[in-house]
Amino acid sequence: MEAAFAEYLDEFTRRDWETLDPTAVTDPVRVAVVGAGWFARDWALPGISRSAYTEATVVTDVDEDAVEAVAAERDVTGVTPDEFRAGAVADAYDAVYVATPNATHLEYVRAAAAQGKAVLCEKPLEATLDRARRLVAACEDAGVPLMVGYRMQTDPAVRRLRDLLDAGVAGDVVGVHAAMSQTMLGELDGDADQWRLDPALSGGCAAMDLGVYPINTARFALGEDPERVSGRTRSEHEAFAGVDEHATFRLEFPDGVDALCTVSQNAQHASRLEVTGTEARLVLDPAFYEREDRGFAVVRDGTRVDLDFDQVHQIEEEFAYFGHQLLADEPFHPDGEHALTDMRALDGIYESADTGRPVALGDDAA
Amino acid sequence: MEAAFAEYLDEFTRRDWETLDPTAVTDPVRVAVVGAGWFARDWALPGISRSAYTEATVVTDVDEDAVEAVAAERDVTGVTPDEFRAGAVADAYDAVYVATPNATHLEYVRAAAAQGKAVLCEKPLEATLDRARRLVAACEDAGVPLMVGYRMQTDPAVRRLRDLLDAGVAGDVVGVHAAMSQTMLGELDGDADQWRLDPALSGGCAAMDLGVYPINTARFALGEDPERVSGRTRSEHEAFAGVDEHATFRLEFPDGVDALCTVSQNAQHASRLEVTGTEARLVLDPAFYEREDRGFAVVRDGTRVDLDFDQVHQIEEEFAYFGHQLLADEPFHPDGEHALTDMRALDGIYESADTGRPVALGDDAA
Repeated sequence: MEAAFAEYLDEFTRRDWETLDPTAVTDPVRVAVVGAGWFARDWALPGISRSAYTEATVVTDVDEDAVEAVAAERDVTGVTPDEFRAGAVADAYDAVYVATPNATHLEYVRAAAAQGKAVLCEKPLEATLDRARRLVAACEDAGVPLMVGYRMQTDPAVRRLRDLLDAGVAGDVVGVHAAMSQTMLGELDGDADQWRLDPALSGGCAAMDLGVYPINTARFALGEDPERVSGRTRSEHEAFAGVDEHATFRLEFPDGVDALCTVSQNAQHASRLEVTGTEARLVLDPAFYEREDRGFAVVRDGTRVDLDFDQVHQIEEEFAYFGHQLLADEPFHPDGEHALTDMRALDGIYESADTGRPVALGDDAA
Repeated sequence: MEAAFAEYLDEFTRRDWETLDPTAVTDPVRVAVVGAGWFARDWALPGISRSAYTEATVVTDVDEDAVEAVAAERDVTGVTPDEFRAGAVADAYDAVYVATPNATHLEYVRAAAAQGKAVLCEKPLEATLDRARRLVAACEDAGVPLMVGYRMQTDPAVRRLRDLLDAGVAGDVVGVHAAMSQTMLGELDGDADQWRLDPALSGGCAAMDLGVYPINTARFALGEDPERVSGRTRSEHEAFAGVDEHATFRLEFPDGVDALCTVSQNAQHASRLEVTGTEARLVLDPAFYEREDRGFAVVRDGTRVDLDFDQVHQIEEEFAYFGHQLLADEPFHPDGEHALTDMRALDGIYESADTGRPVALGDDAA
């Protein structure tokens, strides 16, 4: 018994998807980074560099200064968006990572697909469900693999939570609560990310930018997709006049399991996912932000176990998975079709917020 | 600064409602206890005894053995329900505490009102909204004071949480999450409380029996009442065939603040209330059960303060307040009208679970 527990702890951060030997990789996947905002610079580029399966070779952005800065910091070639779309340095990369404002994903993914490059596109996939469908179709038509950047899915804490659920440790799942909030205006680096406040560029704010985390993580953990959603959105601060500052929503999973979620771009920091089953409660807190260590607790019959473990670099794990699956010629779990389910849920949440009624989510009928 | 903090800690469990001197009480309120189930025996009778403002003098129940056992344990007079309703020993009590199955509250409260006795009735007030209205009317018509047994409202942890909200420590409230669950079948003492599974006696199970806690505690903490509710209920275990085993609901408070709640009679123990504001998060965990110590945490900008304090006997506090307000000739905060708002919310949650649509809660139109 104790040996099994020790083994469980030893194996907590294992990459259960890894079949290749990372020390034997001689030709990592060469990645062009599209978008040089704070996330790309502080997290994605370091993650690509840390991962044995990837290396960054090209960067582009509408902000020439940002491109120049990245090119000076790292051994990458800076190009303009026009040059990138024209394939000026297409020989220098095998794959394209898109981390631009939501409504510009489609144009860059189309360019990458036309160049025959594998794509890793940030979530949410696009600013609208329709544009997201066209993005997925562009990759399908070109026959290029598309992964969507759900970094929670390669986080060991989330994978172990799912393993515990799959193993029945929590019994039947009764319900899920999730909260994710931040003070976005205070955390914005100058005006660089103000595009999140422009509905034409973002498609929405609290639900689109944050809500996608509890939606996708709940889907991944439960291994099910919501059948119906309802939601409410509101904005009070003038900066959020055109978008949702706060959102709450219910995801109705099969068998009557509900996930109740609150997200806010203007509230105290919260980052929590809790799954209550008949036999145990599983708590991730902190759960969602790349910049915080995961907390992982299992509560059962008055016993609470808090698991401390070697924290991973979440973006390294994501890019390692991306590069690994390409090198191993294996499919991505979070692919385009997978991401369209989130886009349908988000679309339904906003529709429900408008009408006051729940929205049934069918299969995709593009 | 430090002195103010120390004073705050010293005063944490203060009875801010108390104007009388408990050591000077010579004639405590004499209470007839109607219903001798486990809660009355394990919690209410000890609470009445501990409180300086009350003493138990009479007990009745349909279970003659239970009455006999209580009479043997404590210095109280046991009577049959018929004798109680006929006022056989009405001279021996000033007030009546009703802790019977929900659908029998009305008959006992009517008898108490006819005898001119003050009433403390357990929540939920009755099995249906209509019967609850008749119960409140019976007390109003007879001119007897009615308190409803919302023990959270006299719990210092809940009062201090409300104080912090009132003082603006959390800023504007953005959202509330609450979860309350237990394995009711395992915790039932034999068949004594099986009435909760009989919809005619209970009016419902998870939402009625547990949901009333997050509903009322959220109302009390926010100082607002919900304007609209939606809910889902479900039952899987055969024991819950006639009632809701699990329920989730959303309470829509003014200004767009939502409380998202999950309650279950057949899930791992959970007991949590979390209020997220623009400036702080306030967490009660454990929050709701009489048998557990409260946990109280304030989280603000990366600082988390866990307050440990002298735990009170929650039922002593409730009865102290009941007796105190009667002796001081002061009104009850949780009175009949207050309780009808919860009954309307519960009624709306069940209606919404039937129709799939949110239900607007108007003022009471009996």
